Amino acid sequence: MNQRIYFDNAATTPLDATVLEAMMPYLTEKFGNPSSIYSYGRESRLAIENARKSVAKILNAHPAEIFFTSGGTESSNTAICAAVRDLGCKHIITSPVEHHATLHTVENLYHRGEAALSYVKMLPDGHIDMEDLEQLLASCEEKSVVTLMHANNEIGNMMDIHAVGELCKKYNAIFHSDTVQTVGHFPFDLRNTPVHFITGAGHKFHGPKGVGILYINENVKIKPFIQGGGQERNMRAGTENLYGVVGFAKALEMATENYEKDSAHIRELKSYMMEELKKHIKGVSFNGDPLGRSLYTVVSASFPKTEKSEMILFNLDINNICASGGSACTSGADAGSHVIRAINNNPNQVTVRFSFSKQNTKEEIDMVVSKLKEMI
Amino acid sequence: MNQRIYFDNAATTPLDATVLEAMMPYLTEKFGNPSSIYSYGRESRLAIENARKSVAKILNAHPAEIFFTSGGTESSNTAICAAVRDLGCKHIITSPVEHHATLHTVENLYHRGEAALSYVKMLPDGHIDMEDLEQLLASCEEKSVVTLMHANNEIGNMMDIHAVGELCKKYNAIFHSDTVQTVGHFPFDLRNTPVHFITGAGHKFHGPKGVGILYINENVKIKPFIQGGGQERNMRAGTENLYGVVGFAKALEMATENYEKDSAHIRELKSYMMEELKKHIKGVSFNGDPLGRSLYTVVSASFPKTEKSEMILFNLDINNICASGGSACTSGADAGSHVIRAINNNPNQVTVRFSFSKQNTKEEIDMVVSKLKEMI
Repeated sequence: MNQRIYFDNAATTPLDATVLEAMMPYLTEKFGNPSSIYSYGRESRLAIENARKSVAKILNAHPAEIFFTSGGTESSNTAICAAVRDLGCKHIITSPVEHHATLHTVENLYHRGEAALSYVKMLPDGHIDMEDLEQLLASCEEKSVVTLMHANNEIGNMMDIHAVGELCKKYNAIFHSDTVQTVGHFPFDLRNTPVHFITGAGHKFHGPKGVGILYINENVKIKPFIQGGGQERNMRAGTENLYGVVGFAKALEMATENYEKDSAHIRELKSYMMEELKKHIKGVSFNGDPLGRSLYTVVSASFPKTEKSEMILFNLDINNICASGGSACTSGADAGSHVIRAINNNPNQVTVRFSFSKQNTKEEIDMVVSKLKEMI
Repeated sequence: MNQRIYFDNAATTPLDATVLEAMMPYLTEKFGNPSSIYSYGRESRLAIENARKSVAKILNAHPAEIFFTSGGTESSNTAICAAVRDLGCKHIITSPVEHHATLHTVENLYHRGEAALSYVKMLPDGHIDMEDLEQLLASCEEKSVVTLMHANNEIGNMMDIHAVGELCKKYNAIFHSDTVQTVGHFPFDLRNTPVHFITGAGHKFHGPKGVGILYINENVKIKPFIQGGGQERNMRAGTENLYGVVGFAKALEMATENYEKDSAHIRELKSYMMEELKKHIKGVSFNGDPLGRSLYTVVSASFPKTEKSEMILFNLDINNICASGGSACTSGADAGSHVIRAINNNPNQVTVRFSFSKQNTKEEIDMVVSKLKEMI
């Protein structure tokens, strides 16, 4: 059997061995409850507070603005619900290409009658229509919350977070950005970014699963989403995922240290993949704006629909190649990708997302493209 | 420096080396996103479904009734909010000695006007007043949710979960029990227990932190608390804490296999601790019902308040002995224990909780009691 080729790093990434090493003391002898006041507890507390400081420094935020959660989904749920329930937003503005962590949360608030709901128009290149966004903001008399993702997980399109933030500021709106695909892959400077909430998930940049962050700008005060003990300065109850938190910080430190090198390597893989696909697969096209404002990790390719291409994901798997039709979180569903549907409603295409990490190589791309050639 | 003596196992327990071993493949090469449809993903999915089956079998529940969460706190939040928001309960009945995961959740629902709130009376021995509970149930015309903990985390008192469940059934109430202190320490038989929701946290029985379960009886249908992807059969969104889930199941399997042996050992430690304290410390008393319906892991001792005894936790820590004033989740707060206040409002006492695990010994108790003798 061929060696496995993993081209689905937007779904999850392997835990880095160095990150696991940093977690190991907390998986073994340093097990104290961080809320306990004796020595065992204090060393756990210290590990968490050091992790928080490190994450804050990297994102150029205050440590008091960083909260550890169980992942990106919980973080987005927290931010969006808080905007409506604690910050007085009666109108939610989002887009049809958001992750389900956002879409299902806003739909639920809408169905419960807690807020009105508007979707910003999409341009054919997968970016949001900024004029429509301004119109939506201007036309609503009630306070709005804008929730738009920084980089789309399926097509890689990147939003101009500064431009959207300035618009939100102009209309006194709360701004949440799902940054799950960019934390660890983008040089954030939060002290100079007009955003109230951003989110991150450790497993998207070679950190552990089951841990994420929520950045809450110091100027907004919300109530906890999960209620109980006084953890995370009364903002997120529940005994801390100690090793997860330590691993999150270590993974983000490594991603930041190696950002220039890794992003250049991955960017090259992405453009090589696109060139090779164009060279070898007739009729291939790319979704979104892959050569424009786009995350360097993701390529979304569409192939003409044929009996053979419809079996493409199945055949990739048989050949030990991991790629996906879209978001992993919805891959069980038959409905297809809501993202692709929103920007490119061509039923005669089959879409595959390839997403890369520092561990991938050009040789792997050659092998995948050659297999794709056989399959299509 | 003396070797550390850890008598705070109700706060958290060390991760068992065998449990970590079971987690390691998922912390290294088996990293696939369980929602991905290719081989890497399927092996992760299989690990989660096997964990679910194992947990269900041990608790005598259906696998479809077991949902993995980020911990006991999230599980309790989910159950209580769902009872009010999805199951039509307009009246919450709880007790003043619940964990803050319950108390702060019900207070929030009450303050938001989503439900009325009643507290059942406590008897001097720390048990709930069953007659008062029945009266509360009988006097309310609206549907109630009863949320009462199985074993109290500070004093160890155990509720008769069957008797309370039968009462709830009689009055058509929803019944949630916070079983965080008993999952892994009690032989559950959920198919024959009239309860709608129970909760568990891996780190209370030598499993990992950051992972818990929520049991939802098949006869109740709720909406997810955390919205997003289709994980956990659309009931709990967010990429699964894969190693956490695997570790939870392994720890529960080990706790169950060794239950007879471990519980006998710990029960003996508990009664030995009480005897030795009575023998050596003048004026010691015990909170709750430690020789009656009580969890075998916890002893809550009160000492006469003196200048010396007020420093007891501090001095225990200096001597490398870990014990707590009450719940770890509230140990940062100055307010003292709400549990002790509710059942024994004696300001002239200082309370210490000692809680044991399979790893503790009588020799450790001898050392701790001899140190306590010096301190008081």
